[in-house]
Amino acid sequence: MIRFECDYLEGAPQEVINAIGKVNFEQNPGYGDDSHCARAKALIKEACAAEDSEVFFVVGGTQANLTIIGAVLKNYQGVIAPVTAHINCHEAGAIEATGHKVLTVRTADGKLLPEQIDKICRDYWNETHCTHIVQPGMVYISQTTEVGTLYSKAEVAAIYETCKKNKLKLFIDGARIGYAVQAPGSDLTLADLPRCCDVFTIGGTKQGALFGEAVVVNDEELKKEFPYHVKQRGALLAKGWLLGVQYEVLFTDNLFLKLADHAAQLAVKLREGFKAAGFEFLYDHETNQQLPVFTPEQVKKLSRKYTFDHFADMKDGRIATRFCTSWATREEAIDALLEDIKTL
Amino acid sequence: MIRFECDYLEGAPQEVINAIGKVNFEQNPGYGDDSHCARAKALIKEACAAEDSEVFFVVGGTQANLTIIGAVLKNYQGVIAPVTAHINCHEAGAIEATGHKVLTVRTADGKLLPEQIDKICRDYWNETHCTHIVQPGMVYISQTTEVGTLYSKAEVAAIYETCKKNKLKLFIDGARIGYAVQAPGSDLTLADLPRCCDVFTIGGTKQGALFGEAVVVNDEELKKEFPYHVKQRGALLAKGWLLGVQYEVLFTDNLFLKLADHAAQLAVKLREGFKAAGFEFLYDHETNQQLPVFTPEQVKKLSRKYTFDHFADMKDGRIATRFCTSWATREEAIDALLEDIKTL
Amino acid sequence: MIRFECDYLEGAPQEVINAIGKVNFEQNPGYGDDSHCARAKALIKEACAAEDSEVFFVVGGTQANLTIIGAVLKNYQGVIAPVTAHINCHEAGAIEATGHKVLTVRTADGKLLPEQIDKICRDYWNETHCTHIVQPGMVYISQTTEVGTLYSKAEVAAIYETCKKNKLKLFIDGARIGYAVQAPGSDLTLADLPRCCDVFTIGGTKQGALFGEAVVVNDEELKKEFPYHVKQRGALLAKGWLLGVQYEVLFTDNLFLKLADHAAQLAVKLREGFKAAGFEFLYDHETNQQLPVFTPEQVKKLSRKYTFDHFADMKDGRIATRFCTSWATREEAIDALLEDIKTL
Amino acid sequence: MIRFECDYLEGAPQEVINAIGKVNFEQNPGYGDDSHCARAKALIKEACAAEDSEVFFVVGGTQANLTIIGAVLKNYQGVIAPVTAHINCHEAGAIEATGHKVLTVRTADGKLLPEQIDKICRDYWNETHCTHIVQPGMVYISQTTEVGTLYSKAEVAAIYETCKKNKLKLFIDGARIGYAVQAPGSDLTLADLPRCCDVFTIGGTKQGALFGEAVVVNDEELKKEFPYHVKQRGALLAKGWLLGVQYEVLFTDNLFLKLADHAAQLAVKLREGFKAAGFEFLYDHETNQQLPVFTPEQVKKLSRKYTFDHFADMKDGRIATRFCTSWATREEAIDALLEDIKTL
Repeated sequence: MIRFECDYLEGAPQEVINAIGKVNFEQNPGYGDDSHCARAKALIKEACAAEDSEVFFVVGGTQANLTIIGAVLKNYQGVIAPVTAHINCHEAGAIEATGHKVLTVRTADGKLLPEQIDKICRDYWNETHCTHIVQPGMVYISQTTEVGTLYSKAEVAAIYETCKKNKLKLFIDGARIGYAVQAPGSDLTLADLPRCCDVFTIGGTKQGALFGEAVVVNDEELKKEFPYHVKQRGALLAKGWLLGVQYEVLFTDNLFLKLADHAAQLAVKLREGFKAAGFEFLYDHETNQQLPVFTPEQVKKLSRKYTFDHFADMKDGRIATRFCTSWATREEAIDALLEDIKTL
Repeated sequence: MIRFECDYLEGAPQEVINAIGKVNFEQNPGYGDDSHCARAKALIKEACAAEDSEVFFVVGGTQANLTIIGAVLKNYQGVIAPVTAHINCHEAGAIEATGHKVLTVRTADGKLLPEQIDKICRDYWNETHCTHIVQPGMVYISQTTEVGTLYSKAEVAAIYETCKKNKLKLFIDGARIGYAVQAPGSDLTLADLPRCCDVFTIGGTKQGALFGEAVVVNDEELKKEFPYHVKQRGALLAKGWLLGVQYEVLFTDNLFLKLADHAAQLAVKLREGFKAAGFEFLYDHETNQQLPVFTPEQVKKLSRKYTFDHFADMKDGRIATRFCTSWATREEAIDALLEDIKTL
Repeated sequence: MIRFECDYLEGAPQEVINAIGKVNFEQNPGYGDDSHCARAKALIKEACAAEDSEVFFVVGGTQANLTIIGAVLKNYQGVIAPVTAHINCHEAGAIEATGHKVLTVRTADGKLLPEQIDKICRDYWNETHCTHIVQPGMVYISQTTEVGTLYSKAEVAAIYETCKKNKLKLFIDGARIGYAVQAPGSDLTLADLPRCCDVFTIGGTKQGALFGEAVVVNDEELKKEFPYHVKQRGALLAKGWLLGVQYEVLFTDNLFLKLADHAAQLAVKLREGFKAAGFEFLYDHETNQQLPVFTPEQVKKLSRKYTFDHFADMKDGRIATRFCTSWATREEAIDALLEDIKTL
Repeated sequence: MIRFECDYLEGAPQEVINAIGKVNFEQNPGYGDDSHCARAKALIKEACAAEDSEVFFVVGGTQANLTIIGAVLKNYQGVIAPVTAHINCHEAGAIEATGHKVLTVRTADGKLLPEQIDKICRDYWNETHCTHIVQPGMVYISQTTEVGTLYSKAEVAAIYETCKKNKLKLFIDGARIGYAVQAPGSDLTLADLPRCCDVFTIGGTKQGALFGEAVVVNDEELKKEFPYHVKQRGALLAKGWLLGVQYEVLFTDNLFLKLADHAAQLAVKLREGFKAAGFEFLYDHETNQQLPVFTPEQVKKLSRKYTFDHFADMKDGRIATRFCTSWATREEAIDALLEDIKTL
């Protein structure tokens, strides 16, 4: 079986595995108070031109999201997010379990618009009894989005402006930020992030680490308070240096973006192949989550040899699927797939 | 200024005030362990043919809702409700503050359909990783709904069947249950409620009490556990007999439904008057929250003499408003209003 | 049966009942946006020399406590309180249900000492990994305490100094603040409170109202945010004017303190009587909760005619009981009791 | 610097590192649905004679504790634990953040007694208004305890009997269960655990894994519900096979207990050495956390070459310290230390 259902099927590049093996018998102090974490944080700050930000490491994405959102919001506030946002759909109510409503917005393509944010805020503050309604307190967007679409630098800047105008914090979930940065036509770089949001993540799990999310905090108050939240949420790894070592390797010699580039190029190849074979996409874009649409018969046939995600049911009976590329995708796997779809 | 903006503008009928004055210097044990609460509970059970249910009293509606929902749901479950549900719109995220997501459904008229409930459950259990999604655990509906529409007895029965099939609990918010029962064409009675849901409320605040909600629990497990939840949520009134005395009066000689009938008749009169004067309604029904649509100029003119709720903005620029009748509405007020709208 | 088990056995003075009856058919806007609340707030500010504070009304004590503490603390903070504090013992874990630990301190007499607060803070900040420990964020004390003891003005001032030094907020639970102020030897007045804490309550339930707690907020940030918390906790009374009317009466012509004085004088009489009859006290003080110690046989005998609280078991087999006086206690009841204990 | 401050200073035995490297490029399905997790679970069940239990993996200890306790308790319940329990002291209020009070008990040596559990339950159910108090719902103990003491098999059995009698669930935190099992005089084995509690953990972090806790659930209801809680708490590792692979290795050829035995033997050697040199212990026992007492001068001197934990201040000015052994402790380090303390 050749697997395409997600972008975290393999472990980590050999460099990462080797580095873990190498420091394994060092005696490192716990909880991230070690030299590897220190170096990794410095390297991330450098890569992001984020000298004034603080970097923290947690193990997983849901953990990162609930810790950040639970830390930023006041009890009576909620977080604005697209209906398709990971925090709304695939975190088992983890955000609500921290006490906060996800204020959802329907979007055309998984991307939030400044005017949608503005409208929620305007409606809220115009209410006679706004205390009866959840107050918008922050905005959550993902780059790439959960359907693979991309925000441009200008779009993110406009959202951030809208946030600041409405006294909202902006959080960019970067579980796939590397794949976004390396996608064709992308103009938002890592170095833009400290200036266009209050907090963002650089996901390791999908982009070259065994696990781990780097949380980069630009906001002054959150910088000071974040460590307390991390511990209380159970998100503080005892052997924190395991996170440090991995990010140390990923942010040395630009490995992180090189790995992302591999996934990005294969995504383009995948898309071209599907297009050439006449398939449509649920959302047509060039990032690492490709969403081709098949008939149920085609899905059945393909499933004998490949795994992929059943993404959505179309009204016409067809099925939108998801095929992911990652740093670990082998080009032969893509070639085999593209060959096979020709005769579906 | 003549006020129509809500159905809780006045205190309580003189009988209720007198009863409070009369028992005021009795020495009653606290927390509802008194004879008035006991008698009130017996009277409510009789009125609802609810001999096997347990009755509890709390002070307010949001309190009742968050205590019930927080008590019934497991941590990882959410409550299915129409987008327009009070718990979704007007409780400041109180449900989410107990840790639970409101799983919203768009409806045509504020009423949930069995097939919508079914679909959410089917989608949930069909997921490859349903643990990643909020599990539906209960259904919340209101009678009348927040937009004034009414469920028929058959509709509620069908919803309850669907709930049982999907192992969901059903909660009927009866903040306006009396007004619902007395509305023209209504066929769901108080005595039906113990057999068509797991828990329901009989609101006092809008229907003849100074304050108070009677929570009628049909579900066996919830019966035993509910008192603990009430105290923890801060919903246990020290002088609980204040709630008992009021419900005692309301459920003696059928006062509760007589009061509701007054509101119901004036609602019909109001609707007929608006219709006769050529006004449309956002939702056209015969219950105590009438939603006539006006131009902004008409709203401005009417506002000089009357208060009413700005309910929703129409796409054509007009404004849907809300005028409520209650047990305390004076017929002269209606007459004056109906006279004035003729010349708007 | 003559009842002494608590200080909320009766309703309210006739003036309060009359006032409610009088405004009953006024049409008042909901949620405290009415003229009675406005006037009551002005009167309370005047009585407390609290021109810069904001006053809010909620229905009950647990509700007030959980709303205040949940509003003030950051997620990772806890509240320092004596082991005997109401929030620690008798609120069913309501504070923990808002996510916060009660950091308990053993005391000699229910009163917290500045050095105890200091020690907790010092221990916290001295920890190598203080993020692993609950951060002290506020201090909760009650006046009178739950065992009837009294803080002097100097003692409260010293606690507040310690709080400010350690960046803690101070909350004084005034469920019995009137009884405290009127107790013999008391030197902390209502007018001192705005200058010696960040937030305090003036309890209505035990001191002349049917129900209700006035929350007086001195802290700037909490002033702005408190209304949102009140609604989300289900603590916002729809007919808020019911609270306003009661406090309006209580703070007119000094009624609140006159009522408290009645309870205070009868408490002294009760104490003198118990002392004269040779009984000891669990804590010996002159406030309205008297804690005489009896043998089990004496308790049994007394229980035939009187109700009182079984407060604590003594190591020697005796039982510490609680007899409360209130604004409503009849002197004849005291006389009868004092006569009967002579022959126990 | 030679480090003794905790038992998680190094990574994992070479076998574990090798195994991770070996499966690194396999394509494994996420979230623990892989063959390594399946095999690891089977091996753990075999080692624990736990054929009817279910095994789950999470990343860390605080995460395991808050997920288990939050899953078992009803909203209004608390968990009984020694004052010294990890959940009470060193998890930043994580349990309270799930809404639950830790009902603490002072102990002589970190070990809970059945009669202490009984007393809390008796006091609770004897209360006139037990709804006002946190209901005991479960008991938490650690083996070894946080101060290094050990429960015997009979002691745990007695606690479990008391739990069942009082309808409490029993949770044994096995962060150091291997070190406990291998300690001299220990008679509680892994195979006893499924029959003497409702849920227990087998900690990886301190006992041979890079990270990870195996949660072994004996209770029927918790078995079914636990996966939902794991996801919602952010405790589900995307690449779950990383946990599976590690436990697979640890439970093959008895490696887990062999590693524990190494730590246990060095702990005995350490204790004998401290004893021979005339040092006292805060608690004298033979497990892997040794707590020798030093003067401040001795601490200062030792600190130049060794790291260790400042555990507690003694009343006489001396300092109780903590030295830990682990699977990775080198005997030369012990030898050096024992040599150096002779001349302190």
